[in-house]
Amino acid sequence: MSQDGKSGGLRPLSRRGFLAGAGIGVGLGAAGAVGADRFTGSGDGDPAGGEDALIVPFNGAHQAGITTAQQERMYFVALDVVTDSREELRDLLRTWTTMARRMSRGLEAEPEGSVGVDRDTVATDTGEAVGLRPARLTVTVGFGPSLFDERFGLAPARPEELEDLPRFPGDQLDERISRGDLCIQACADDPQVAVHAARVLVKAGSGLVTVRWAQLGFGRTASTSIEQGTPRNLFGFKDGTANLKNEYTNLINEHVWVHDGSWMDGGSYLCARRIRMLLENWDRQTRREQEEVFGRTKDEGAPLGREHEEDPMPFNEWHGTDGPLIPAHAHSRLASAPANDGARMLRRGYNFVGGVDDYGHLDAGLFFIAFVASPRDDFITVQSNLSHHDNMNAFVRYESSSIFACPPGPVDDDDWWGRGLFDQTA
Amino acid sequence: MSQDGKSGGLRPLSRRGFLAGAGIGVGLGAAGAVGADRFTGSGDGDPAGGEDALIVPFNGAHQAGITTAQQERMYFVALDVVTDSREELRDLLRTWTTMARRMSRGLEAEPEGSVGVDRDTVATDTGEAVGLRPARLTVTVGFGPSLFDERFGLAPARPEELEDLPRFPGDQLDERISRGDLCIQACADDPQVAVHAARVLVKAGSGLVTVRWAQLGFGRTASTSIEQGTPRNLFGFKDGTANLKNEYTNLINEHVWVHDGSWMDGGSYLCARRIRMLLENWDRQTRREQEEVFGRTKDEGAPLGREHEEDPMPFNEWHGTDGPLIPAHAHSRLASAPANDGARMLRRGYNFVGGVDDYGHLDAGLFFIAFVASPRDDFITVQSNLSHHDNMNAFVRYESSSIFACPPGPVDDDDWWGRGLFDQTA
Repeated sequence: MSQDGKSGGLRPLSRRGFLAGAGIGVGLGAAGAVGADRFTGSGDGDPAGGEDALIVPFNGAHQAGITTAQQERMYFVALDVVTDSREELRDLLRTWTTMARRMSRGLEAEPEGSVGVDRDTVATDTGEAVGLRPARLTVTVGFGPSLFDERFGLAPARPEELEDLPRFPGDQLDERISRGDLCIQACADDPQVAVHAARVLVKAGSGLVTVRWAQLGFGRTASTSIEQGTPRNLFGFKDGTANLKNEYTNLINEHVWVHDGSWMDGGSYLCARRIRMLLENWDRQTRREQEEVFGRTKDEGAPLGREHEEDPMPFNEWHGTDGPLIPAHAHSRLASAPANDGARMLRRGYNFVGGVDDYGHLDAGLFFIAFVASPRDDFITVQSNLSHHDNMNAFVRYESSSIFACPPGPVDDDDWWGRGLFDQTA
Repeated sequence: MSQDGKSGGLRPLSRRGFLAGAGIGVGLGAAGAVGADRFTGSGDGDPAGGEDALIVPFNGAHQAGITTAQQERMYFVALDVVTDSREELRDLLRTWTTMARRMSRGLEAEPEGSVGVDRDTVATDTGEAVGLRPARLTVTVGFGPSLFDERFGLAPARPEELEDLPRFPGDQLDERISRGDLCIQACADDPQVAVHAARVLVKAGSGLVTVRWAQLGFGRTASTSIEQGTPRNLFGFKDGTANLKNEYTNLINEHVWVHDGSWMDGGSYLCARRIRMLLENWDRQTRREQEEVFGRTKDEGAPLGREHEEDPMPFNEWHGTDGPLIPAHAHSRLASAPANDGARMLRRGYNFVGGVDDYGHLDAGLFFIAFVASPRDDFITVQSNLSHHDNMNAFVRYESSSIFACPPGPVDDDDWWGRGLFDQTA
């Protein structure tokens, strides 16, 4: 992992300083303008460690935004490629990488920033993040199965596991918000920073890609580090207690990162599903009914029959002869590793809320995201189990289903998303 | 204004302490359970002043959430009343007031909280804000013109100015996201706190009200206090430089608060419009073109021909004979008080982003909210001017239009939203 973004020597100048030094309205070459900066306003909370702590390193063996301690907000965009040119696709991925690297450091997407080369230029950066902090922005890119068709010569490199997820029982999928050739997952503690990053990349791809669907996540509903508290989902329950944490190095290596010697080595598969929560129905259930659906208590998030959130799930204990402490079809049991041949995943989902449906019910729920080394072993196994048996199915509706292969990270400032894939198919 | 929420003596117990003292699963009367609390996790930033600074006083001559320094996030819900019972509507408003007062202090909506009276109870609070801080939550309620029809005996008290906004030139309104009998504007620095508050009130109105439409605002795009920086809208420009600030007491009194001796005395009219921004079109414009649309510079937000954001607009200065410094149809000129017979409004809008439209364009923009003492003088005058002449019209689409009368605040713990209206029509 490089020192990108962490080194004091790379700290950008202030935007005001940059403009004062260069002259407003004067054309600027890239070489003289690397300091375009956004750090002039206030964003969300300022964690211990100051501004450096707001920058997530971009370069590395793995992409940022996977095991990164989960940020509070997310904007996710799926795109279709509309050019048939392999070279244009490759150049776009290079451009995106460079822009995302800059934005992760709190810089504008390119040196000229949102003011452009001069007043008669169309600027690359759209400007709405000027003044905002880096806010731990990460941008994570993935390739959908459809990218590996005949268009770009990538078919020979399609990983065997990169295929559309199966239709699970009960799925009510909307094709318009499923799948895509590419995806951009932008996460940050400030939603405007996340929205800006994805939008700028979309703009950079104008004429080459179109947005297929997009989803805002207003609040994280998982934790990916033992440093984070467990947030609550819109059912009011703590969500993600048993999630993989980035500190569990061995489990992360086994269940998140691909190790296959191909271009995907060091990458991970992103599985995304929009899970509408039928809140009006849920809200009519007693606490007992809700707790038996989850297998955990509502207040503490403890396993039923236990007191503390972190207590192990007593899957094999019974209420005398009245049945198991954790009901047979409770969500926490069915989703657990023991019930799925040891399957584990790194969940990184977000609560969402839109408008209302035709019945006046809130269009709200969980935008589920999981990163896995093997979609088959770590995701499909678990989802199949849940879709067949989970008591929670009465209260949710699976509305979309997508899978993307997220390549390894750019290892240095010359590297770019997908270089290995293009090299392997050259 | 009462000491509600500001007094150390009212600081709630911790949720854990409450449960330990009362016994989990034991039925609790309201009297023994006033301490149900949410302060156990971490929310967004912790401002100077500690947790007390995260509580906005609820009781007062005016409702909170109008001149309150604008919070970062918003969830707005418009509802239709489906009962014909005046008494049920009145009781609902009473219940809502009590619940909102508690939630503003970081408490659950009622003393039993999300755990309910016992395990076989359907709880009132849905629980997803347990562990979150008050986050400066405000809940502001308004009454639409349609509430004053024959159903509830309120017609004699309909203010003359409370009528559907006129259709302005260029409006492309969607009825399904316009108007409503009631509205709830929930604002907080943590979106989950705002979403929770509105959802709990909707749940409390089950069978009496249905949600007509809802809108999440992910980031403020105005400032209502001189203590706040000016945020940027999705066009990348600073938005709200010339907005009324809550420190401008005389202007607020004149242009925000109603003074008519009726039940609306101390209240304000809320005008809301969903303004889709055609970002793909905007993003193709040069900086010069964009700046001439606004009449301000993109980087500093300064009036054209000036250097600093706070410099007065030079409406009467010319570039020699080349035309005015601020173009005749620039947004900032057309929206200004001098161009509108002195009209002013308190804007409190939010950026939004949804999915994509049928053309793959981002469904994003500004959910515009303004509070005014006189819709006719302070809002319609300005909007009419903009709708006829604003150069920005090429880049926006007005998709919804709504007006609500927000009554004065509950002055003490026995008072409730709309009491004056019901008394006046008793």
